Amino acid sequence: MALLYLSTSARLPVWKTIFNEAGVTLIAGEDAVNDPLEVTAIACWTPPADLTRYPNLRVVLSVGAGVDHLPPMPQGVALARTLAPGIEAMVRDWVVMATLMLHRDMPKYLDQGRGGLWQGHPVRLASARRVGILGMGRIGGLVADSLSALGFDVAGLSRSGQGGAVPLFTAEQTGAFFARSDLLICLLPLTDATRGILGARTFAALPRGAGLIHAGRGAHLDMQALRAALEGGQLSAAMLDVTDPEPLPRDHWLWRDPRVIITPHVAAQTDATEGARHALAVVQALRSGAPLPGLVDQAKGY
Amino acid sequence: MALLYLSTSARLPVWKTIFNEAGVTLIAGEDAVNDPLEVTAIACWTPPADLTRYPNLRVVLSVGAGVDHLPPMPQGVALARTLAPGIEAMVRDWVVMATLMLHRDMPKYLDQGRGGLWQGHPVRLASARRVGILGMGRIGGLVADSLSALGFDVAGLSRSGQGGAVPLFTAEQTGAFFARSDLLICLLPLTDATRGILGARTFAALPRGAGLIHAGRGAHLDMQALRAALEGGQLSAAMLDVTDPEPLPRDHWLWRDPRVIITPHVAAQTDATEGARHALAVVQALRSGAPLPGLVDQAKGY
Repeated sequence: MALLYLSTSARLPVWKTIFNEAGVTLIAGEDAVNDPLEVTAIACWTPPADLTRYPNLRVVLSVGAGVDHLPPMPQGVALARTLAPGIEAMVRDWVVMATLMLHRDMPKYLDQGRGGLWQGHPVRLASARRVGILGMGRIGGLVADSLSALGFDVAGLSRSGQGGAVPLFTAEQTGAFFARSDLLICLLPLTDATRGILGARTFAALPRGAGLIHAGRGAHLDMQALRAALEGGQLSAAMLDVTDPEPLPRDHWLWRDPRVIITPHVAAQTDATEGARHALAVVQALRSGAPLPGLVDQAKGY
Repeated sequence: MALLYLSTSARLPVWKTIFNEAGVTLIAGEDAVNDPLEVTAIACWTPPADLTRYPNLRVVLSVGAGVDHLPPMPQGVALARTLAPGIEAMVRDWVVMATLMLHRDMPKYLDQGRGGLWQGHPVRLASARRVGILGMGRIGGLVADSLSALGFDVAGLSRSGQGGAVPLFTAEQTGAFFARSDLLICLLPLTDATRGILGARTFAALPRGAGLIHAGRGAHLDMQALRAALEGGQLSAAMLDVTDPEPLPRDHWLWRDPRVIITPHVAAQTDATEGARHALAVVQALRSGAPLPGLVDQAKGY
């Protein structure tokens, strides 16, 4: 019973220490596997092409919060994602920053600054800005709490009807939800149901001049629809941590649009210690038959 | 008994309505003064050059939160500043945004974006960042609460020893306070004691590579010391809402330094309704002999 580690070498020493202390075998890299029967768990971003090499494999653990990049698992292999308080807090921080930056016209001020132009624009109270959160999972709940505490008028769209202390709209109320989202935040997992959701129809349903804050996945976003919405004034600004494609090519129009601010998929990084502890908890749950922490519903995709 | 209004015409209709409803005389502009003896209060940013024209003047009210731009008042004339919850929340929002922007390396990402460079840097948890707040008044307390809620390790420097739920350093502990301020936030009032406080000595006392967030007054900041600290790497970045001079000239070096982000003195604007209500409360306090809301200690300067 061993975990096969297929992630960055930078984090490996921390993982080794934590697995050693717990007396659980960690194998670093496929070349180090002597007995494939021993491998019951694989921690990776990109899994091995041939998982059938490990007949006793029971779980593949994504070392990030997302699993949309992973192929379907063979029969009998569970899929888990890393749950780490640090990831959630980091994404929350990025989203709060991005929301404030659009609320306070930073794209405009940054553009003016390039020309040395000192010119103020009206300031609005946060309470006068309606924020809509797409994706009211754990991170969405944290974001809702933080933005509410700053006075923003926050609501969420939730399939499950759960998600903290803000008003929730159901799938049937999607139109009303978009119509009150001056700033739309996307925190959705990427699934067949959400792919391309940030497209022309959604943008048209927002109030004119709305802002988009995107910390989901690049494939949620229809880049041509974004361009058209910005050109037509339906969207006034966007702050994106994810794009399609990634990395964004150096000569892409998005870099040069002053209404758009991009960060290179850095809303969160898994802390090595948190990631290793979560992986250890997954292996220990496998052993004891307890529910796997971070287990993914492979039918739903999250 | 009348208030002489010497502020922007844009806000005048709101003031007129609020004063009319209260039955208090509002005179808009010095040209409209028929009987100078009637004027007991003046609401202004810039006061009239000759206040002796109004022998019954009892208070000059700054329509903003600051009073450092006002000359000494004649004997018997009180000085007040506008207290408005909106101002405080707006500055808080700007400071939280600016703190997150430096915490999350936005100057670096904005600079990379200009060249179309997609390159991530390590993300730190807010709890790993020590924030120091200079000026623990009402706004400083709000900022401390909001940043603490996001997990930042916040402390304040306070002459009065008051200021919310974070550790406070006294004037005697200034060195220790600076030494633990990875991000230094200035919210001080401008007085003889604080003029130039953001200078070479302060910067040298910060941890190497610290960031500066400045929402005080331009004259707190020694611009040449800022430049030297950035060039030498003692400061890694700065986010400024105030500069010296203001407006910042179009060809100023500060606009072109990628480590510096500037907004044109827009951290807060007084909401017309809030400002008018505060002015009315000042006039009514004058009438009834109650303490003036927002009264400034002219010896201390705030």
